[in-house]
Amino acid sequence: MEQVSVQDASAPARTAAAGEGISREELALAARNHGLPLEALRYEVTPPGLHYVLVHYDIPAAGSDGWRLAVRGLVRTPLSLDLAALRALPSVTHRVTMECAGNGRALLSPRPVSQPWLTGAVGTADWTGVPLHLVLAEAGVRPEAVEAVFTGADHGVERGVEQDYRRSLPVGAATGEGSGVLLAHTMNGQPLPPQHGHPLRLVVPGWYGMAHVKWLREITLVDAPFTGFQQSVAYRYRRADEAPDSPGEPVTRIEPRALMAPPGFPDFMSRTRVVHPGPVRLHGRAWSGYGPVVRVEFSGDGGRTWTEAAVEPRGPHPWAWQAWTCAWEAVPGRHTLSVRATDGEGRTQPLEQPWNRGGFGNNLVQRVPVLCC
Amino acid sequence: MEQVSVQDASAPARTAAAGEGISREELALAARNHGLPLEALRYEVTPPGLHYVLVHYDIPAAGSDGWRLAVRGLVRTPLSLDLAALRALPSVTHRVTMECAGNGRALLSPRPVSQPWLTGAVGTADWTGVPLHLVLAEAGVRPEAVEAVFTGADHGVERGVEQDYRRSLPVGAATGEGSGVLLAHTMNGQPLPPQHGHPLRLVVPGWYGMAHVKWLREITLVDAPFTGFQQSVAYRYRRADEAPDSPGEPVTRIEPRALMAPPGFPDFMSRTRVVHPGPVRLHGRAWSGYGPVVRVEFSGDGGRTWTEAAVEPRGPHPWAWQAWTCAWEAVPGRHTLSVRATDGEGRTQPLEQPWNRGGFGNNLVQRVPVLCC
Repeated sequence: MEQVSVQDASAPARTAAAGEGISREELALAARNHGLPLEALRYEVTPPGLHYVLVHYDIPAAGSDGWRLAVRGLVRTPLSLDLAALRALPSVTHRVTMECAGNGRALLSPRPVSQPWLTGAVGTADWTGVPLHLVLAEAGVRPEAVEAVFTGADHGVERGVEQDYRRSLPVGAATGEGSGVLLAHTMNGQPLPPQHGHPLRLVVPGWYGMAHVKWLREITLVDAPFTGFQQSVAYRYRRADEAPDSPGEPVTRIEPRALMAPPGFPDFMSRTRVVHPGPVRLHGRAWSGYGPVVRVEFSGDGGRTWTEAAVEPRGPHPWAWQAWTCAWEAVPGRHTLSVRATDGEGRTQPLEQPWNRGGFGNNLVQRVPVLCC
Repeated sequence: MEQVSVQDASAPARTAAAGEGISREELALAARNHGLPLEALRYEVTPPGLHYVLVHYDIPAAGSDGWRLAVRGLVRTPLSLDLAALRALPSVTHRVTMECAGNGRALLSPRPVSQPWLTGAVGTADWTGVPLHLVLAEAGVRPEAVEAVFTGADHGVERGVEQDYRRSLPVGAATGEGSGVLLAHTMNGQPLPPQHGHPLRLVVPGWYGMAHVKWLREITLVDAPFTGFQQSVAYRYRRADEAPDSPGEPVTRIEPRALMAPPGFPDFMSRTRVVHPGPVRLHGRAWSGYGPVVRVEFSGDGGRTWTEAAVEPRGPHPWAWQAWTCAWEAVPGRHTLSVRATDGEGRTQPLEQPWNRGGFGNNLVQRVPVLCC
């Protein structure tokens, strides 16, 4: 009999060959996970089921009954909290725009083979829960702790490594009151749906989705930076001139991006948009994990010339996307529409792809082909 | 200036070349629409956001305010009902398993190029609404009417034809009390989410999803069979030896299928399952649009030998899937697990692909590769 091991479940990381279509394994991920249909940019808060979902392994069968959150490691008082205990603590609600670090990956050339996102891996929700600093204060973080490690109930294999999904945050980020980090038990006023981490997930405003650990079951305070798979192997920026096993740079906050709700109506298969001649009110949303978006520019000629769109100022929700609108006069012919966001730190979307081996943070400007007739 | 027309938005129907990966246009559909993650077969009623979704064009901005359903054509009293008027009528709740007619399309060889479903385009919900026959009785269907045509608010282009999404039912099916056909305003006790047809959709128990017209805004009684695009061009079974423009046979009721919640845990990228040696309790669901499932068989050797699984008898929900379970002894090595459903009419899942040009009704038995170690 053939000897098999867990390692045999995984293939090495690779990029697709020139002209290679999406593989069966990428399709299996695309068919289970899903992005925001871009017309849903019309909603300030994304309705249930339209928010993007990425699940690494299986959605665990994690019910509310019997579920507990352990807080352990370098704390004075280890805790084991059930959902009732967590709900009894003071809670706050944050409106948070969340985006997958791999958003835009399938538009890269060459294409890193993984979840093949186009541009829709984003969504905004009202998350209600207990500020993390309150729970950590109750446990009493010891001074020698440098990071908090968050463990989810999802279990699987990745690149030959069997693991529970696990990510860390520096103690400063985890305990800072201004960070907005939440242990969220409620999404848009309802218990979390299974695919969003029922019964509890970490929410880390401004960070890409990999930080928002779902099905959260344990927080462990440790005295050295965490080196688990999702921290030091996956979710690293590694340039083309760096080796696949180089340390790279960590993926953290969300790069700025603007998206347009495509105007007119689509062809079913090509998704090409059709608009009739005349004035068109374009609209969409823009966001950055580094602070407010201060400028959105529009191009109706494929990026050759740009004009300023009107951006809603950041309101009472510092971690939520901002609406923008722009007038466009549609004339018969073929057009390519683009928008580009710039944040208060001067970060702006690139016009050339920001390629890296994992396909992370690709905020290349959106291109929307439109046929006006 | 180039003269363009709506026809230029569409490409002709085609099948993929041998070895051709999923195209960018198929990926655009796969990224917006989504299937049921198969571990969610654990739920008798699919939680919100996990039920499969297929949207042909855009999700329309159809709110409850100002929305009306028109009932017109060959009726004695044309109606224009707002949502309050519909909610004031007697309502019933049906638990219905709904499946996309294209489920399994991307497993066909050659692959018809369209929404590239694997096996997960299914889900079960409790739909509450007004029996269609009550509304038609109020309008008074004239004897010369032969079909009811249902029009949704979604608008787009398909194969060069600009259209509102529109499908018909024979008057008998539409008015039969036993058909269970509903004008549903409530899904799992909540208003319909936007992607499931808010504020109103047709539900036709036992039929593939294309019949369940979403964002329903008009019912028109007509004296001749409807020949619109979604009735006579799309959603037809056309064998390989029939011409692409042959009439073919209409796609109607759901062919039998059993699916397994894949055991063990997955590799992120390959989705290969890993199980440890020992007894495994396999489970899943089975359904048919032609009546109860009477037999589910299991194969642990890629379909060479089959044993009977235990199928839950059809209970109080005649249009919902039935649970099945089966014991399997996992021994080290590689395995391919399959299940096969047979309904009360003797329809059974094929072991060879039932190929047709549109890729409809592919209920080839599921194959789940498992690595035991």
